[in-house]
Formats: sequence, structure tokens, C-alpha cells
Amino acid sequence: MNYEQRISQAAHKVEERLLSLLRDKPQAYASVLEAMEYSLMAGGKRIRPLLTLEFCTLCGGEEETALDPACAVEMIHSYSLIHDDLPCMDDDDLRRGKPSCHIQFGEATALLAGDGLLTKAFETIAAASTLDDTKKARCVLQLAKAAGAHGMIAGQVIDLASENRQISQDTLHQLCALKTGEMIRVAARLGCICAGADEKQIQAADIYAEKIGLAFQIEDDILDIIGDEEKLGKPVGSDAQSHKNTFATLYGIERSRELVASLTEQAKDALNVFDSQKSGFLKVLAEKLASRDN
Amino acid sequence: MNYEQRISQAAHKVEERLLSLLRDKPQAYASVLEAMEYSLMAGGKRIRPLLTLEFCTLCGGEEETALDPACAVEMIHSYSLIHDDLPCMDDDDLRRGKPSCHIQFGEATALLAGDGLLTKAFETIAAASTLDDTKKARCVLQLAKAAGAHGMIAGQVIDLASENRQISQDTLHQLCALKTGEMIRVAARLGCICAGADEKQIQAADIYAEKIGLAFQIEDDILDIIGDEEKLGKPVGSDAQSHKNTFATLYGIERSRELVASLTEQAKDALNVFDSQKSGFLKVLAEKLASRDN
Repeated sequence: MNYEQRISQAAHKVEERLLSLLRDKPQAYASVLEAMEYSLMAGGKRIRPLLTLEFCTLCGGEEETALDPACAVEMIHSYSLIHDDLPCMDDDDLRRGKPSCHIQFGEATALLAGDGLLTKAFETIAAASTLDDTKKARCVLQLAKAAGAHGMIAGQVIDLASENRQISQDTLHQLCALKTGEMIRVAARLGCICAGADEKQIQAADIYAEKIGLAFQIEDDILDIIGDEEKLGKPVGSDAQSHKNTFATLYGIERSRELVASLTEQAKDALNVFDSQKSGFLKVLAEKLASRDN
Repeated sequence: MNYEQRISQAAHKVEERLLSLLRDKPQAYASVLEAMEYSLMAGGKRIRPLLTLEFCTLCGGEEETALDPACAVEMIHSYSLIHDDLPCMDDDDLRRGKPSCHIQFGEATALLAGDGLLTKAFETIAAASTLDDTKKARCVLQLAKAAGAHGMIAGQVIDLASENRQISQDTLHQLCALKTGEMIRVAARLGCICAGADEKQIQAADIYAEKIGLAFQIEDDILDIIGDEEKLGKPVGSDAQSHKNTFATLYGIERSRELVASLTEQAKDALNVFDSQKSGFLKVLAEKLASRDN
């Protein structure tokens, strides 16, 4: 199976499971469940659940074992996008070329759909038939910390506070590490936990995820300046227009590209603790994310 | 210790623990943590965590064992109030006589504070040093189900859909069972789980909590019509003014009072499976809630 096949096979598997986890929709309150499904199934690269599945198999586990935690990670990612798009936050009408959740279902339902997905993430782990109670408790703890007020939410707070003012490189790094980095890191980490990985493996996964997470964000910022609108599916130049603090504006394009290249190498190096036969896909993933055009 | 002393002692214990769970407030994102604390410490009767503590000791456990799950329940209750008060939901500027969270901190911070409390609830259970992993996993599962899109959130959806139109008694019962009943029920249930209760005890706790939860809501509706504004600390007649569907308007005051009395008896009867010496407080609690004037 080549890189593209693996990506789409994992995405398909995650999407099937997500659908089945949200199957039940009693008529009296179907709207919120439809809104949850709408946002959850709106596409995206499914990179986070892919990391969960990949690190589980890399650490010697069965992919199936990590499927529900992988879905939980994607639910939290999806909830964060719904709440981020709300008028009181980024006020975005479009998400991946489609009406965002509150445009499609109204603000109240979108708010509740986000709450519902966040809650469902923890239910999904606690109900996972593939995990023993110790793994469930560890996954819940790690996921809640990563998504919580000292993790992803802290990143959103710093992001809001940084609007319309110049921030330092340190603050930008902290913002990125928290707002997007924490969830990417915990995605990899949950895969390790599901497989019963040792501390050394978990640390390697942390470093890999941290590096590709940062590289991904920097590449995003670069593409916003020099990307192809058609391939991106969104207008370029929006960051500059809204005076957003980005790596590309703070470091310049050339230095940003060097950073992406160096982070990608560091990510690949971190995988050296694993069987090199099995880590090939994650190495390619790091490279592809760094050289993507969308 | 009499009834009032026990209520305030438990509330004090819960509030101290809540404060200590939120102690850490790094400056870069302190705003959201302050908003979480503001809403969490805004008072209230702390009935839900009290139920968790009481059912734990009633089932033979130490109160301390259930303290973190009790705090988790209160965090979810508090998050639900923050999100409920937002402009896109009930648009309430006041909560317990103080500015609601979004008035005090702005909408974006209030939204994130709610998200943060919901997430922190699960972290708190998963990190509880008093629980083994099996109890943690069970508590997370039960709490997520009760708070989720088939529980409390479903109740909020039905509530939104019922605005400005007459609903049936069945729908009102469903609304109440989901919107407030589920969290009261799980509060009691978590106490049982912490104590390692058997199925018969959990079922009795479910029935008790279900009955007092419904009686509490009906009493609320009655007080909104005939209550004393000064004692209530809020204006009466607001339900009728906003054409809200309430038990008092659907059943009338007299029938509503009969319902409260009968539910209170049923709640007390459910406690007969427990040691009658130890269940005294919960019987008094059921009576006091039914005869309160605020």
C-alpha cells in the first residue's frame, strides 16, 4: 500500500467508525446530532486520527485497538473548529468550502453540537471495548489535559489576545504549541498508550508529533502567502490582510522554509527508536506534510 | 450535625477542592481560568456534589473518595450555565444576582471557559488519586452519557425547540428528565460507583435522584408564580411572561403541589434499601427541597 492509499484507507476507516458512533438520532433532538455529524463528516485530512492509528501499530498494537481513541481525537478537533467559527470567536461563515456549522444549523445548535462532540469524545474512550480500564483512564487524562484550559483552549486564549498586535516569536511558538500542537501530540500519544508502549516510545512519539505539528503550522503560514488558491481551496493573503501573527511574517518565507525542513528532519530522527521497517510511513508523512501545496 | 450544617459543610468542602483544582493560572492565558473560577465559585446550593458525597458514604465509602467526582459534576453544571446564558442561547445577563460569565469576561472567554470546565471535569476524574482505574472509567462513561447529546444537551435542544409554543406534558417530562434530571441522577450515581455499590443500590439512587430532580423542577415552576421575590432573589412571573412551558402552567398550582408531595414520598421510599440510620439526611433533603421558598 503506498502513501496515498494508506491515508485514504485510514480516513475511510475513521469516518465509518465516526458515523457508527453517531448513528442513533432520536427525533426530539435530532438537530444537534445532525450538526455534530455535519461537522465531523465535513472532510479534512484526518491527520490526527491517522497518527493515533499509526503509533499504535508502530508500538506493536493492533490498529483496531486505537480506532475509538482516534475517533475521540477527531471529535475534539471537530468541536474546536465549530466553536472557533462562531461569531464571538473567528466569525467564519465557511469551513472547508462549506457553510460552517452555525451558518447551517444556527448558533445555538452549533454551540451545543461542539459541546456534544467534546463530551462524546470522552464517552467514546470510556466505552471503547478494545481498551482495559487502565488504558481508558490514561487516554481520558491525556486527552483532557491536551484539549483543556492548559492545552488547546489556552492556545485559543493567546490567539484571541494576539489579534491586531505584534507578538514575539516566543509567544507565537507558545500559541502554536498549545493551539494546534497539543492535539497533534496527544493524537500520537494515545496511539502509544493503546499499544502499551514504554516511556521511551511515548517520548519519541511526542517529539515526532511536536515537530510535525510546528512544521505543519509554518507551512500553513507559507502557503497563505505563496500558495495556489485553487489547490488550497481558500483565498491566499488572508493572514496578512487581518494582520495575523504568523511564522511567515515573523521569520520571512526563506527562514520559515528552513525551519520546516529542519523540523521535518528532527521528526524523522525521533522515529529512530522504532523498527525502521515499520516507521517508513510516518517518515513519508512528515515529508509530505512539509512539501504539500494544500 | 443538623441539616443546615451538613449542607454548608459539604458545600465548603467542595468549594475548597474546586479552588485547589483551578489554582494554577499562568499569566499568558489567565483570563479563561479566571472566568472558569468566577462561574464555578458564584455560589449555588451545591446540591449535585452533595448528592455524590452523600451516596458515597451511604453506600459505605469514604466521603473523600467521591470528592473529585463531586467536583467534576459541579464543573459540568457550571459549564452548562455559562453556555446557557450566552446571547445565542437564553441571553441572560445575570446569574445568581451577579453578571453572567460573558458579561463579565466577554463572549469568547465565556465560551472557552465553558469548554474548559467541561474538559476539566473529565480530567479531574481521570486524575483522581482516590479512584482505581475501573471506577475512573465507569465515572467518565456515566458522566459523559448524562452530560452529552443524549442527556443534558438533548434537554437543552428540546428546550430551545419548545420556546414560544405549547408542548405536551410528555414533552415537558422528557425535557426536564434530560435537561436537569440526567445530571442530578449521575451525581448520585457517581457517589455509588465511588463506594463500589451494588446494582440494587445504584438503582435506588437513580430513583431517588430522578424523583427529587423532577420535584425540584416543579417546585421551581411553582415558586416562579407564587414565590417571594425577596427570598428568591429574582423576579417572579418571568416564566409566564416569556410563555415558558412549565409544570405549574401545564398542571396548575394545586396539581403541581400534589406531584411534588408524591415525588418526595417516592424518593424517600427508594432509600429503604439503605441503612435507615444513614439515609436520614437524604430523606430530610428531599423534604426540604420540596418545601423550600428559594
